[in-house]
Amino acid sequence: LKRFALIVAGGTGTRMGSALPKQFLLLAGKPVLMHTMQRFFDNDHSVEIVLVLPKNQIDYWKELCRQYSFTVNHKIVEGGSSRFYSVKNGLELVDEDSLVAVHDGVRPFVNHQLINSCFDQAAKNGNAIPAMPVHESLRKLNERNNERIDRTNYVLIQTPQCFQSSLLKNAYAKAISDNFTDDASVLEESGIKIHLVDGLKENIKITTKIDMYLAEGLINHFNH
Amino acid sequence: LKRFALIVAGGTGTRMGSALPKQFLLLAGKPVLMHTMQRFFDNDHSVEIVLVLPKNQIDYWKELCRQYSFTVNHKIVEGGSSRFYSVKNGLELVDEDSLVAVHDGVRPFVNHQLINSCFDQAAKNGNAIPAMPVHESLRKLNERNNERIDRTNYVLIQTPQCFQSSLLKNAYAKAISDNFTDDASVLEESGIKIHLVDGLKENIKITTKIDMYLAEGLINHFNH
Repeated sequence: LKRFALIVAGGTGTRMGSALPKQFLLLAGKPVLMHTMQRFFDNDHSVEIVLVLPKNQIDYWKELCRQYSFTVNHKIVEGGSSRFYSVKNGLELVDEDSLVAVHDGVRPFVNHQLINSCFDQAAKNGNAIPAMPVHESLRKLNERNNERIDRTNYVLIQTPQCFQSSLLKNAYAKAISDNFTDDASVLEESGIKIHLVDGLKENIKITTKIDMYLAEGLINHFNH
Repeated sequence: LKRFALIVAGGTGTRMGSALPKQFLLLAGKPVLMHTMQRFFDNDHSVEIVLVLPKNQIDYWKELCRQYSFTVNHKIVEGGSSRFYSVKNGLELVDEDSLVAVHDGVRPFVNHQLINSCFDQAAKNGNAIPAMPVHESLRKLNERNNERIDRTNYVLIQTPQCFQSSLLKNAYAKAISDNFTDDASVLEESGIKIHLVDGLKENIKITTKIDMYLAEGLINHFNH
């Protein structure tokens, strides 16, 4: 099956305390988003990359591609008013009979092993979602209190979240809410069981200034 | 009230893929544990530091202190067979009428603001526990399935966990189980409400090789 990578880069930078959206910040001299896309391209040169970007960032991105001689082939789609609509827009460029990996543009440390395990398991089971154990104590907030929770019953979810494309497209078409934090939740809403695969500790999501510092530590060990 | 810092450093290194326990690994040329203890000392030179270490690491630690001319005053206590018994041992050196911060030896990025807010709130409310929002999607594992969970109802817990010492000593004395992942849970078991304060993103716990890479990224920005 043909493989698509739908890279979602909707960040506007407001959470970074920085004018520049986080996907454009430089990591080892190259925008974060380029690291991310390069990982998918290096994994499989025939992958079809669809990049979803806010409309007002598209010209800037094209300029960055020229400036950094970024030659990884990709199509660009305009983002929507929320993550849900951004993914939905991107899915329009994804073939029905294919596999699609939806991945955060700000997770540049995804690796070959995780990409392949997600695609392979999705081919087999319809979907594959990377999950990590919870390593810190977990508490649940109640109305006026909070209580300890057995963390071994919970997992933290990463991307890439991989799907047989027709299943995900169908789930997005049918969804009656747009209030989802990830694609697994959209699929689950359509009644489908979610299959977990082992996530990757270094596959962090860069959403704050501190995350950029963490990424600087990782890049020395996981650079291409 | 007198302030105690009970630093728990029970790690045996098995999770690091390294012979050296993680608290002794070098960060910016200095063992992780020294960074951690220095933070408490710099915050308040009159703090009483109690370090809990596995018995077979005590000589090595003393040698490290000589080698690195580490002059932060502290007492050393032998660890127990689990975290519960290690803390319990350490509490024997803590005055009844005082405040105690129990802190992971492998969280070297704790800062003045967090230490002070924990001590201050514990003085007021009996206890204060740092909590962070969950930034990734959360799923709950069931026997044969898993389901999405509203992450906004959950928080991830850090240290230092601060207490009026008599309350914590009493909770440890009364506990009928030793199966706790943190001290807030021990206190809660004794029927006391847990008070949360804002945690700190960079206050990571170094338990794997990847965590050391993350710490290397942080240390350039948060070095003393």
